[in-house]
Amino acid sequence: MQGAFLLEQVRERVKEDASLAKRQPFKAVLEGDVALLSAMDEPQLMELFAATHAGKTQDEFAREVRAFFQTARHPKLGVPYTQLAYAPMLELLQYLRANGFQTWISSGGGVDFMRAVSEDTYDIPPQQVIGSSLKEKFDEGNGNPVLRREARVDHLNDKAGKPVGIDQHIGRRPVFAAGNVRSGGDIQMLQYTKEQPHPGFALLINHDDAEREFAYAEKNDASLKAARQGGWTVVSMRQDWKRIFPEGR
Amino acid sequence: MQGAFLLEQVRERVKEDASLAKRQPFKAVLEGDVALLSAMDEPQLMELFAATHAGKTQDEFAREVRAFFQTARHPKLGVPYTQLAYAPMLELLQYLRANGFQTWISSGGGVDFMRAVSEDTYDIPPQQVIGSSLKEKFDEGNGNPVLRREARVDHLNDKAGKPVGIDQHIGRRPVFAAGNVRSGGDIQMLQYTKEQPHPGFALLINHDDAEREFAYAEKNDASLKAARQGGWTVVSMRQDWKRIFPEGR
Repeated sequence: MQGAFLLEQVRERVKEDASLAKRQPFKAVLEGDVALLSAMDEPQLMELFAATHAGKTQDEFAREVRAFFQTARHPKLGVPYTQLAYAPMLELLQYLRANGFQTWISSGGGVDFMRAVSEDTYDIPPQQVIGSSLKEKFDEGNGNPVLRREARVDHLNDKAGKPVGIDQHIGRRPVFAAGNVRSGGDIQMLQYTKEQPHPGFALLINHDDAEREFAYAEKNDASLKAARQGGWTVVSMRQDWKRIFPEGR
Repeated sequence: MQGAFLLEQVRERVKEDASLAKRQPFKAVLEGDVALLSAMDEPQLMELFAATHAGKTQDEFAREVRAFFQTARHPKLGVPYTQLAYAPMLELLQYLRANGFQTWISSGGGVDFMRAVSEDTYDIPPQQVIGSSLKEKFDEGNGNPVLRREARVDHLNDKAGKPVGIDQHIGRRPVFAAGNVRSGGDIQMLQYTKEQPHPGFALLINHDDAEREFAYAEKNDASLKAARQGGWTVVSMRQDWKRIFPEGR
C-alpha cells in the first residue's frame, strides 16, 4: 500500500513540476504504475520517499497519508487498505493484549506512514510502531516550530535493521515475534527473538494461498530455510487459516 | 551520573590497555576526574561513549550499567544515584499517570544508560525512554545473535535533537513537557510542546537552590529568556519545592 501511496505522491509532484516525469525514479514509477512499485524493495521505496518528501513537515505528511487512506482501494482486491488486516493477526494481537503483552508493529515501510493508520487498523498506538524513517530536522519557523523531512534515509527497518529498530525503540528482546515469507526481511528479527538466554517464540507466516490472497515465491526459500534451522513455528495461510480477512468487509 | 559511569569505564579500559592513559580524551578524563566530566556536554560524553564502547554487545553494556548503579555514590551527596530522583518529579509523574497520561523520559544522556534504571527509579519502562544513542549493528554471532555498539553517534538527544527524538519514538507532539535550566538543552523541546495548533503545557525547572541541591548559572540565561518569551511555567526549586529528595533516603 505504501507503493500505491507513493505513486499518488509522484503524480502530485509531477503536476507541480512536469519535468520530473522524464527523470528517474519518477519516470519508472509513472510508467510502471503499481506493478513496478510492488516489485521495489524497502530501500528503493525509502529512497523514493526521500526524493518526493524532502522539506515537508511531519504534520503535512501525516495529513496526506490520512487523505490517501480515506479514498484509496487495493487495485486487485478492490477494498480500502485499512480493511486488509488479516483476521488471524487481529485475533492474535487481541489475545496477546488480553494476556498482558504490549503489542508492537515492526514494519519495513515508513514509520510515519504506518503510524497514520496503526491505531484504527490494529489497535496499536503510534508510539508502538517501528519502521523505516527519513532524517528529520527541527525548524523554529518564526515561533511556530515544526519538524521537516529531509532527503536522507535515517533508518532502514528491514533485514538486519529490524533487530536494531527493536532495540532502539523497546530496549529489550521480544518475547514473541511474528514475521512473514516475502523477501527475507524478517529473518534476523526472528533469529534475534528465538536465540537468547531465554528463547522467545518465533512465528513465520507463509503466503501460500494464491486463491484467497497471494502466493509469494521467495529467492532460495530463505525464510523457510531459516525457519527449519531455527525451529520456528511456520503457519500456512492456505492450510491453517480458516479465513484471511475479517468477515463482513 | 553518566560522567561518573564513564570515568569508571575509562579506568577499566586503561587496565586492559595502559597506553590509553596517555591519549585523549582518556587522559583528560583520568586526570580531571568527575569535575572535568561534569563540565563535558552531552555531545562530548557521547563521543567518549563511542570511544570506550565500540564492539560491546548491548547485553554486556546493560550489565555494566547495572553493576555501576549497585555500588556508585554521588561524590558530593554521598548516596546512590537512584535515590537522587527529585521528590516533586516523582509526585508529578505519579499524578499524570493516575490521570491517564503515558509518561516518558527524554534525556540528553545515553538511552541505554537511562533504560537500565528508569523503571526502578521513575516507574518508566525502557520503551518509554528516549535518549542519545550510538549506531548499533546486528551480528549473527554463529547462531547466537547479538547487537554490537559501534564507535559512531547515531542520535544526539539534546537541543534541536530533542523534538526529533520525541517524534521518532512517540510520533505525536507532547501534551505536556518539563525541562530544566542547565545548558539550554530543553528549549526546543519546550517550544515544540507549547507552540502548536493545540498548545501544550511547558514547564521549566530552575536549579536555584545552592543550599539543598545546586545553583546552575546558564550562559545568557537562555532557558529563562525563552520561558518568558514563550509563556512557559517556571518553577523555582528554592521557593516552590518543599523538599528536593524523597524523605527517608
